Amino acid sequence: MVATKEENIQIIKNGHVTSPQGFSAGGLHCAIRKTRLDFGWIHSDNPATAAAVYTLNAFQAAPLKITKDSIEKEKLIQTVVVNSGVANSCTGEQGNLDALEMQKLTAEKMGVDTNHVAVSSTGVIGVPLPMEKIRTAIHSMNDKDNVSAENFEEAILTTDTMTKHIAVQIEIDGKTITIGGAAKGSGMIHPNMATMLSFITTDAAVEQKSLQQALGDITNKSFNMITVDGDCSTNDMVLVMANGKQNNTQLSETHPQWPLFLQAFQLVSEELAKQIAKDGEGATKLIEVNVKGAPSDEAARQVAKAVISSNLVKTAVYGADPNWGRIVCAVGYSEQPIDPDKVCVAIGDIHVVKDGLPLEFVEAEAKQHLENETVVLNVDLQNGLHEATAWGCDLTYDYIKINASYRT
Amino acid sequence: MVATKEENIQIIKNGHVTSPQGFSAGGLHCAIRKTRLDFGWIHSDNPATAAAVYTLNAFQAAPLKITKDSIEKEKLIQTVVVNSGVANSCTGEQGNLDALEMQKLTAEKMGVDTNHVAVSSTGVIGVPLPMEKIRTAIHSMNDKDNVSAENFEEAILTTDTMTKHIAVQIEIDGKTITIGGAAKGSGMIHPNMATMLSFITTDAAVEQKSLQQALGDITNKSFNMITVDGDCSTNDMVLVMANGKQNNTQLSETHPQWPLFLQAFQLVSEELAKQIAKDGEGATKLIEVNVKGAPSDEAARQVAKAVISSNLVKTAVYGADPNWGRIVCAVGYSEQPIDPDKVCVAIGDIHVVKDGLPLEFVEAEAKQHLENETVVLNVDLQNGLHEATAWGCDLTYDYIKINASYRT
Repeated sequence: MVATKEENIQIIKNGHVTSPQGFSAGGLHCAIRKTRLDFGWIHSDNPATAAAVYTLNAFQAAPLKITKDSIEKEKLIQTVVVNSGVANSCTGEQGNLDALEMQKLTAEKMGVDTNHVAVSSTGVIGVPLPMEKIRTAIHSMNDKDNVSAENFEEAILTTDTMTKHIAVQIEIDGKTITIGGAAKGSGMIHPNMATMLSFITTDAAVEQKSLQQALGDITNKSFNMITVDGDCSTNDMVLVMANGKQNNTQLSETHPQWPLFLQAFQLVSEELAKQIAKDGEGATKLIEVNVKGAPSDEAARQVAKAVISSNLVKTAVYGADPNWGRIVCAVGYSEQPIDPDKVCVAIGDIHVVKDGLPLEFVEAEAKQHLENETVVLNVDLQNGLHEATAWGCDLTYDYIKINASYRT
Repeated sequence: MVATKEENIQIIKNGHVTSPQGFSAGGLHCAIRKTRLDFGWIHSDNPATAAAVYTLNAFQAAPLKITKDSIEKEKLIQTVVVNSGVANSCTGEQGNLDALEMQKLTAEKMGVDTNHVAVSSTGVIGVPLPMEKIRTAIHSMNDKDNVSAENFEEAILTTDTMTKHIAVQIEIDGKTITIGGAAKGSGMIHPNMATMLSFITTDAAVEQKSLQQALGDITNKSFNMITVDGDCSTNDMVLVMANGKQNNTQLSETHPQWPLFLQAFQLVSEELAKQIAKDGEGATKLIEVNVKGAPSDEAARQVAKAVISSNLVKTAVYGADPNWGRIVCAVGYSEQPIDPDKVCVAIGDIHVVKDGLPLEFVEAEAKQHLENETVVLNVDLQNGLHEATAWGCDLTYDYIKINASYRT
């Protein structure tokens, strides 16, 4: 959250994944889905230094494996190609062949090295990619009418209700560096729908090892700290590309302004993560859980996740019920080193538990905070100096409606 | 489940916690709750060998601590006293003093050793015990009109919709041994409601160490394998008492018929656990997840718990949607050694996934099974010889309704 207070970071109004120099993007409809755009791409003028993190689910979709292999070879990506509607997950050997063909055809169309193409799919699990439609789509890639960041940001959506994008700027060595991003979520919605996807771009020159390290660290504090229903999919991926268009002295952990770059990178990731959490199935509110006073970062993260994942907390927030007992209980079963007699809880800025004991508070005031669009729950373990923040959404009738309904 | 097939175990029709010899129980209304019975007890003619397991929540309610201390002293319990409506949790030092007084007054009233009284509370967290009402209740303990197992089984309920009880009989050394039990659940319902409680009685003579060991093992395969919303409360406890009324040669791990006793003990625990799961907030169906082919018991348990805890699986079952992708996904993120290419899934006896790949199946048949009162999901990891079963319930509109509503 500190990053948002950082004066040296400018948030670009209506920024996109193409805000950084040398990136273009587009999207089109190839009829995998009935009417919505379902095929998109991001392209860099030159091969960009790439880093990525992937789902920890034991079931990894074919496109994830292909992309992972390619990035490991040269650590460069120039074109990202994505389809929605079908996840190409649990599709066996045919799934691998289809993902490889999607990669190869894209490389030919865009005139780039095959290993410089990242492929990604999101949608129904267990259904093969409709390759005829994919081939047709690739053929029309880059047609003027299809080129636009908005098209890309729409094309990657599944049951999302809004596109998710942001861009920020910072000054590094007197050069203006831009970091942009686009994402889709959230959770797994319509029967067998998978995937959280996030694509981050920058025109800075960044050393690959440092970029990969930064992505891992920042993902743990952003995309890995959101939950809609706790179910992590087979296709989740976060990919970052740095094309060096600004000709800055290469950024790395040794660069004096590395911390500023990290703050901007974190801000972009955190905002995309929050946009995903807020757009959770049936959600009416964004919930932010701040945990401080933890003995370690891991303990802080686990406690925050226990609270944000509690169905009882999520329903209490939906009902605007200042139900601190459920928060305390979730803290208690987080399996972290907790001293019950030290735990403090506040709903917004209304303190409801101090040193493990309930405080007198005006229920109406707590209820008022719980009716905000963003609900903040603060937990102080008074047991260390580490902190973490998690984001999620309330659990509503619409979540049941969406997820109990049949495949259509 | 094998236990239910055990011919040597007779299930007593409408059995109760008082079915074993030498146990009595009762319940009354002391106005902690508006109209329902809210105070109950179990009493043994003689001090019974006792064993117990307690919540792992870092926040442990006062009565749990008091009971734990008492059992650790002499490993004997003669009277159990329980109130519902107020959990005496997060009540600080006053909570300890109140639980101690509740224990002492009960001991005096029943003429037993103070250390032979187990105290238990379930209800709202963070509210002190109304001691005046508790004192009045203890004064009326054992009044003829209040003595009945049904009264006890009602008095321990909170938002449960039904009482939970069972009793079975086995032959040991030619003696008829009875094991009975009563329980309440489930999850944490009305704002700040806590607790799963289970009380098991037997008229067998059982060596204490063996009894404690058996309770721990069996709890891991029964009460620890149910989930309603995954939230484990501050007051959860399972207590077992063996009063030896049958004068059998003391049962222990070395007794030739120990396995039969374990089977009967497990059957009682499993049935109580299933009754709790089935009575989960808003539940319309009992879900049973069987995992086999796991490399360890722990892996089998974790995979079964991941599936039974998935909101997406729970809503799919509610919607009778044969959504195998969600089951596979939950197996995948269980963080256990899984080979995705070996995983098989069946909905009831309809095989939907084989070796990680979808099978053709008649959706209507799968849907039909999902409309049963008990839904069975079978997962074969084909990666070992260990298995586990977990029980839960579907996630419904009523769950949201119950849990989003205000404290009343």
